[in-house]
Amino acid sequence: MTIKMYDLAGAQENRRFSPYCWRIKMALAHKGLEVETIPWRFTEKEAIAFSGQGKVPVIVDGENTVFDSWNIANYLEDKYTKSPSLFGCSQAQANALFIKHWDEKVLIPILLPLLVTDILAHIHEKDQNYVRGMFEERLGRSPEDIAKTPEEQLPKLHSSLGPLRETLRSQSFLAGKQPNFSDYIVFARLHWGRCISPIKLLETDDLVYAWRERMLDLYDGLARKSLGYDV
Amino acid sequence: MTIKMYDLAGAQENRRFSPYCWRIKMALAHKGLEVETIPWRFTEKEAIAFSGQGKVPVIVDGENTVFDSWNIANYLEDKYTKSPSLFGCSQAQANALFIKHWDEKVLIPILLPLLVTDILAHIHEKDQNYVRGMFEERLGRSPEDIAKTPEEQLPKLHSSLGPLRETLRSQSFLAGKQPNFSDYIVFARLHWGRCISPIKLLETDDLVYAWRERMLDLYDGLARKSLGYDV
Repeated sequence: MTIKMYDLAGAQENRRFSPYCWRIKMALAHKGLEVETIPWRFTEKEAIAFSGQGKVPVIVDGENTVFDSWNIANYLEDKYTKSPSLFGCSQAQANALFIKHWDEKVLIPILLPLLVTDILAHIHEKDQNYVRGMFEERLGRSPEDIAKTPEEQLPKLHSSLGPLRETLRSQSFLAGKQPNFSDYIVFARLHWGRCISPIKLLETDDLVYAWRERMLDLYDGLARKSLGYDV
Repeated sequence: MTIKMYDLAGAQENRRFSPYCWRIKMALAHKGLEVETIPWRFTEKEAIAFSGQGKVPVIVDGENTVFDSWNIANYLEDKYTKSPSLFGCSQAQANALFIKHWDEKVLIPILLPLLVTDILAHIHEKDQNYVRGMFEERLGRSPEDIAKTPEEQLPKLHSSLGPLRETLRSQSFLAGKQPNFSDYIVFARLHWGRCISPIKLLETDDLVYAWRERMLDLYDGLARKSLGYDV
């Protein structure tokens, strides 16, 4: 049975830019599971009210409804045990949680000020006020107040990616020879930018760029084919 | 047969403060392997020349000589397959390499300026010129030039530990319910400070502090019993 997934969309219905949704789209492909994505905008709270909360990703798998990307990954891992593992073992699952928090604690504060203007330029008109309110509520400032330039943020981004870059000197993926959910977590963060902004986040000669290229190629180019900027 | 390990010592022979050596002492205890540590100072290059290089840890396990903490961990994992795994699976091993590089790229630049004065105060007299030369060579500056105060560095340290702190909200160790080499990597970095400096690196109410307490208790208090400061 095809899994349904509510997937954040921009003004254009096929601009699917949520990093949390990308984590799961890659995870579903990793497990070879069919998915039907349902475009969803920030303000369409009623459409996912059945999940008991108001954010995507939300998946509906038969009788099961699951939200929150980490929970969904764990659900898929536990339920689809015959498909390739998203982690490999419980220790790797535990280590991946560290990588998730590294992504969220380190990369978001650098990328959000860089991407915020492009995010506002690409979200649906009906979401504009809601998203502006979210910035005010969470950061106490307007999107314009937190916006920073590539000149300010790209050196910080490249520096913060140091641990990933060093790791990629001796292995192809964060998970080793093949990618797993730890790779999808970090890839999804960078793909957020690629979906919504013409800013070139990575230098072409960066090992992280080469890794991202490999990620873009996975699953018949699933992420590469998505609407975004070829940067 | 007992494994021999060359272990960095300070002016006091039982001040064993190398974080790379602590990674391995914890790993050996994890695997239930007996070890005889041999105190070694930075300038005793001849004593370990048989390893083909000049740094510790170096282990001698029967006919095998292995250096570099990551290589030693992998050697122990491959050789002692019946002892508890240091990683769990190859994906966890790959993820641990990211944690190693996070430790080295993020924590060293914050801790070294904080600890450098105490390091110089605790190393053997015969190592003083060598260590000063190492600073000049690697950083192009004297130890005094890079030294920074707790007021400058502790907020950076606490912030940089954010991903670890968040991870510890939902699991006891980086590796989940039980510690593995990923925990030893990060613990060893903080234990470096505890062995050599009276500076209180962690606040008592920090989840990272509670985790470090659990690490200090492991293996009959192996690390807690080591000469250092009770901070």
